[in-house]
Amino acid sequence: MSSIEIYKHNKEERIARTWGTTAPGLPYVEETITNSGNWLVGGDLEVLQPIKYHDGLDQYRLSPAQLRKIFEEKQADAVFAFQLRNPVHNGHALLMTDTRRRLLEMGYKNPILLLHPLGGYTKADDVPLEWRMKQHEKVLEEGVLDPESTVVAIFPSPMHYAGPTEVQWHAKARINAGADFYIVGRDPAGMGHPTQKRDLYDPDHGKLVLSMAPGLERLNILPFRVAAYDKSQGRMAFFDPSRAEDFLFISGTKMRNFAKTGVNPPEGFMCPGGWQVLVDYYQSLSSNSNGSLTKEQPKEPVAV
Amino acid sequence: MSSIEIYKHNKEERIARTWGTTAPGLPYVEETITNSGNWLVGGDLEVLQPIKYHDGLDQYRLSPAQLRKIFEEKQADAVFAFQLRNPVHNGHALLMTDTRRRLLEMGYKNPILLLHPLGGYTKADDVPLEWRMKQHEKVLEEGVLDPESTVVAIFPSPMHYAGPTEVQWHAKARINAGADFYIVGRDPAGMGHPTQKRDLYDPDHGKLVLSMAPGLERLNILPFRVAAYDKSQGRMAFFDPSRAEDFLFISGTKMRNFAKTGVNPPEGFMCPGGWQVLVDYYQSLSSNSNGSLTKEQPKEPVAV
Repeated sequence: MSSIEIYKHNKEERIARTWGTTAPGLPYVEETITNSGNWLVGGDLEVLQPIKYHDGLDQYRLSPAQLRKIFEEKQADAVFAFQLRNPVHNGHALLMTDTRRRLLEMGYKNPILLLHPLGGYTKADDVPLEWRMKQHEKVLEEGVLDPESTVVAIFPSPMHYAGPTEVQWHAKARINAGADFYIVGRDPAGMGHPTQKRDLYDPDHGKLVLSMAPGLERLNILPFRVAAYDKSQGRMAFFDPSRAEDFLFISGTKMRNFAKTGVNPPEGFMCPGGWQVLVDYYQSLSSNSNGSLTKEQPKEPVAV
Repeated sequence: MSSIEIYKHNKEERIARTWGTTAPGLPYVEETITNSGNWLVGGDLEVLQPIKYHDGLDQYRLSPAQLRKIFEEKQADAVFAFQLRNPVHNGHALLMTDTRRRLLEMGYKNPILLLHPLGGYTKADDVPLEWRMKQHEKVLEEGVLDPESTVVAIFPSPMHYAGPTEVQWHAKARINAGADFYIVGRDPAGMGHPTQKRDLYDPDHGKLVLSMAPGLERLNILPFRVAAYDKSQGRMAFFDPSRAEDFLFISGTKMRNFAKTGVNPPEGFMCPGGWQVLVDYYQSLSSNSNGSLTKEQPKEPVAV
């Protein structure tokens, strides 16, 4: 590190300005900030050797420069990025395939999808990275996403669950990796308020901030209507409020509860191989001696 | 109002992101936000008639367009703005006269000072606007500031005491009024933490933010060393840490306590006429029947 600067770590101010609340129970705050020190050190970092985790997933950890090279080799004329921290269900896939369709309509010849799951810390009830990566492999194997026009890589950031603040980082980092288009849905990087029965953020603020934030001018934001399970067609579809009664919303929590309790979701919600990965994950948990969900410890990166 | 937009008023998020704390006791929050409604309305405002307060100070309430016209008439080739919410002591005057000196050195021929006291809500223990304006008049009358190269106008904003957030508004509004240079001292718009024994903000963050904030590129920020009473010279001077024992720091609180209790500050701290205004103000308070400080109610603006 060079050009070192040292700052007082005003934790209250950092938390308030990042999350818009100081309520107890913010996952990243409890994981990382509360027990950290009272001083912060910053500066220009020079990476001497690539960072390896040795967890069998390092081939997916591609630097922005590596990603840009791959897009060049594939002769992409548009790159669209999808950030996620959950298993890919067919609603996500619909957003991605529909984006590709729109880009082809706009005249692009070879739009490439960057499927960029978040690889750092996630809260204990999210599905761990290694299981999500297995699930993403199945989604490509079973053709829900086209392997030819998709690049899968791990975005090594920890999840902050900081909504409109964090989504700017998510988007900016993908610009650096070569993305021209960024798919943003409802309440990006959001979560429930830690102490009140409501969403922490207005579900539209994320995309509003992305459309105005300095430094993101070069990125095209693709907002999307929400996708839900259309019972009348037996598949995921964009929600149509004129026939709301046809739609079933399956939240991440509901999906995880299905998988935990061995209930199959409606057909067409997720490809069978992908769903089986989730079932296997929750079975691997319940075979633990205490039978309860254990908190996944994020692996420490190792420089080699 | 046109192009109307309606927003949910998430008070917790607004407070946290504006002040960097949600601790109870933030003056503007208690004055304005806590008891306000749950929805906010925004849009493009068209002012049909100038707003008048009829408090004897309306001649000082100049719009940005009026101020720019005055600077043009005075043939200013540089305008430097000074935001304040306190009586002008000779330390403030030193910052302003030294700025003028620096601008002349830089080659400007006719730098004009915009002395721009804040005219909206201030907390109960700040000196009310009408008394501050009387004090500012004395400072000009007694030649502490040069009347020829100074324009005094009221900045009609309420005080938020929001430090690094608010100072951006303070600076941006002065750009709109024609300022090219903005004087920023230690801990601008700051205050003590409402529930902890420390300053709410790092005293250097305000000027750091001003140097980086989008939209302020056109403004030249003039940071200053802190001024204090130099006992060896019997006047206000820039603090010299190599002879710290010569300096006396007279905070706003200490100054107000001097005036309240009839103690004269050291000679050279403030011009005699200006000091007399403060003494008169505190005497007018103690002649109230209950003998205690009464909370000044800000006057409501009236459109005519």
